[in-house]
Amino acid sequence: MGEDGKIGMTASYETINTRLDGNVLSATFHAPPLNLIGPEVVRDLVALLDELSAPTAPRVVIFDSADADFFFPHVDLTKVAEYTAEAAKAGGPGDASLGMLFRKLSRLPAVTIAKLRGRARGAGSEFLLACDMRFAARENAILSQPEVGIGTPPGAGGIQHLTRLLGRGRALEAVLTSSDFDADLAERYGWVNRAVPDAELDELVAGIAARIGGFPRDALIAAKSAINAISLPTPAEVRADAALFQQLVRGEKATQRTAELFKQGLQSRGATEFALGEALGNLPPLD
Amino acid sequence: MGEDGKIGMTASYETINTRLDGNVLSATFHAPPLNLIGPEVVRDLVALLDELSAPTAPRVVIFDSADADFFFPHVDLTKVAEYTAEAAKAGGPGDASLGMLFRKLSRLPAVTIAKLRGRARGAGSEFLLACDMRFAARENAILSQPEVGIGTPPGAGGIQHLTRLLGRGRALEAVLTSSDFDADLAERYGWVNRAVPDAELDELVAGIAARIGGFPRDALIAAKSAINAISLPTPAEVRADAALFQQLVRGEKATQRTAELFKQGLQSRGATEFALGEALGNLPPLD
Amino acid sequence: MGEDGKIGMTASYETINTRLDGNVLSATFHAPPLNLIGPEVVRDLVALLDELSAPTAPRVVIFDSADADFFFPHVDLTKVAEYTAEAAKAGGPGDASLGMLFRKLSRLPAVTIAKLRGRARGAGSEFLLACDMRFAARENAILSQPEVGIGTPPGAGGIQHLTRLLGRGRALEAVLTSSDFDADLAERYGWVNRAVPDAELDELVAGIAARIGGFPRDALIAAKSAINAISLPTPAEVRADAALFQQLVRGEKATQRTAELFKQGLQSRGATEFALGEALGNLPPLD
Repeated sequence: MGEDGKIGMTASYETINTRLDGNVLSATFHAPPLNLIGPEVVRDLVALLDELSAPTAPRVVIFDSADADFFFPHVDLTKVAEYTAEAAKAGGPGDASLGMLFRKLSRLPAVTIAKLRGRARGAGSEFLLACDMRFAARENAILSQPEVGIGTPPGAGGIQHLTRLLGRGRALEAVLTSSDFDADLAERYGWVNRAVPDAELDELVAGIAARIGGFPRDALIAAKSAINAISLPTPAEVRADAALFQQLVRGEKATQRTAELFKQGLQSRGATEFALGEALGNLPPLD
Repeated sequence: MGEDGKIGMTASYETINTRLDGNVLSATFHAPPLNLIGPEVVRDLVALLDELSAPTAPRVVIFDSADADFFFPHVDLTKVAEYTAEAAKAGGPGDASLGMLFRKLSRLPAVTIAKLRGRARGAGSEFLLACDMRFAARENAILSQPEVGIGTPPGAGGIQHLTRLLGRGRALEAVLTSSDFDADLAERYGWVNRAVPDAELDELVAGIAARIGGFPRDALIAAKSAINAISLPTPAEVRADAALFQQLVRGEKATQRTAELFKQGLQSRGATEFALGEALGNLPPLD
Repeated sequence: MGEDGKIGMTASYETINTRLDGNVLSATFHAPPLNLIGPEVVRDLVALLDELSAPTAPRVVIFDSADADFFFPHVDLTKVAEYTAEAAKAGGPGDASLGMLFRKLSRLPAVTIAKLRGRARGAGSEFLLACDMRFAARENAILSQPEVGIGTPPGAGGIQHLTRLLGRGRALEAVLTSSDFDADLAERYGWVNRAVPDAELDELVAGIAARIGGFPRDALIAAKSAINAISLPTPAEVRADAALFQQLVRGEKATQRTAELFKQGLQSRGATEFALGEALGNLPPLD
């Protein structure tokens, strides 16, 4: 993190391509082959959030993905310990979780806007929920929290945000079914701000970002902070969800079901990842 | 409640027909002539919730009604003391209310899905709101909280759930107008998860139930419990609403207006019950 | 405030035309040339709320505007001290703010319904949010919180109500973009109860008002009070927002941007007021 924050920020991450345009930073996740949330992505995100916390940081950040099919498929399930260790570097003791990292994202002075094409599942959905706003391409965006179908509740904010945004009934449906939600249903339920035609998405988001980028920083920070005070979960809530996830994801059921999914091609670019909601529904049911 | 819970559960209630299919129990309310929530229905519901609290209970329950016009019209207003006495058997001291019984329903380890055709008014709507998810037939489902039109606030969770699900403005509209809401408006306001064509309702709900029924029980229970911790009212809130209802429903205004409605056919299968929202609007206004 | 409250209420405000019809009071704001929220409107609103707090007051109030283009454009930015002094007369110490005045509006025993045609921006939107229900004309209603674009967070309840009604993501969008929202988008986000064709708006609202006006007063008050207990912000939250607004609206950035807007015709009946959302986006961006 150099003195000249703006220049330094435009080229320095292995898995995040950044481009600064006035007060607006575009940050594009690029972690081939699948954009899994693994140690590298988390390491880079920790560093980017650090830079964005600086007083000279851009007012607005647009997050999107270089992979049209996968914004973030989910975490790398073979590297839970490793990415958690990276996440720990963002905070103090007790903060070794994606949930606490995403809470830091929610509290950035910068305004964060997610532009969703393709799939955002699990911690991918939770990353989006931690952003300030979410806009989705109607034709191809898919959101899901597949964790319960595997064997654990979502652990990085999904429980907290979905319950507050969707209300009890729809949050229970989203979380307990582990189903894929298309953009229109996600919009109706409040999971995203709006679903718009893919062809209009870039212009909509660029317009919002440029507009906000021209507004007084003090007012932006004060307003966001006041809204956060009402709507963000407490650290205790986030830590409790993370602890439960880290316990159950290593449990017998989740281990078995994850192994079965890997046999079917989990974490490879194929049918299981493209239609994970279906794959979960087709796993052998449990007694 | 026998040792072999699953068999025992499939045939033993006077007003609830049950059928077990794998991990999914179907529970169909059948209390002719009108499916009023009276002492018998409450007695059977208390017993069913007891069975569903057992570790061997099915993972998922689908609730529907044998009466295509009336899921639950409302409580039996001639037997408030009697059904309240039955409800008291579900809990500890201070729990003598439908509200506390419905709160127990919300906290079951089993996942509860309501399938709505016809009318669910008053405590009928509150029963649905206490379930985990609600799906409604677009052509014929009707929801309302008619209590204020009679002379008391809703007392069994309607205030709590509608305010959290719909927000202040729409909850005030629903509760203060005591109007009938059709399925589409109920969906737009968040009173039900979704309104779908009647012809698609059974398949939608069966699919969701079977899917959830195949998922790990520990994860379902943990996720539901975490969502409940954020979204359910406290026992104190539920008890306060129940106490106010039990007081005002016996007050002068409610007694007069209930008597007038009985003259018009309340609790009979006729125009007043079919269009209760209209009937309430046509009662002589008060000074 | 006379003994015969009902007669006294029908003709006595300089900027509010009132008309009593049974239990329903119609209150039409009329403060030409632009319906700005200035000292006169606030003075009259303080007096009207006082009358509406009386036990003999009408059960229901419909608020609308005599100006088809401007329900309330926003506060009179040249008279912040003056209207704040008027607002102070409604409450106790610490209540010198529109926010606390609007909180008093939310807690009236009377049921308040806003009928929106034209623009309701800033404190105009916050007035509507403090009412119990809001219905908007699809063709011409516009809502916005333009404060952040000027240089301060909204200070009279907008932060509190929008976060609770719209959820974190949509509230951040509404507040941070300071954009104009049309009636349809406002309905989808929950900013208004419903958007309906202009030609149907009067009948819809009159029907709801007459219906509620015929219901028992005790039940209306008890139900509204129970919903308020869950959904209204605390006085401390309202006061904190007001204090921040009163500080930042006098700050350097807001002063500069307000001056620039005045050069463009702010508070005159012209393009800047008709399309304030656009004008804010076209102000010179800040470094």
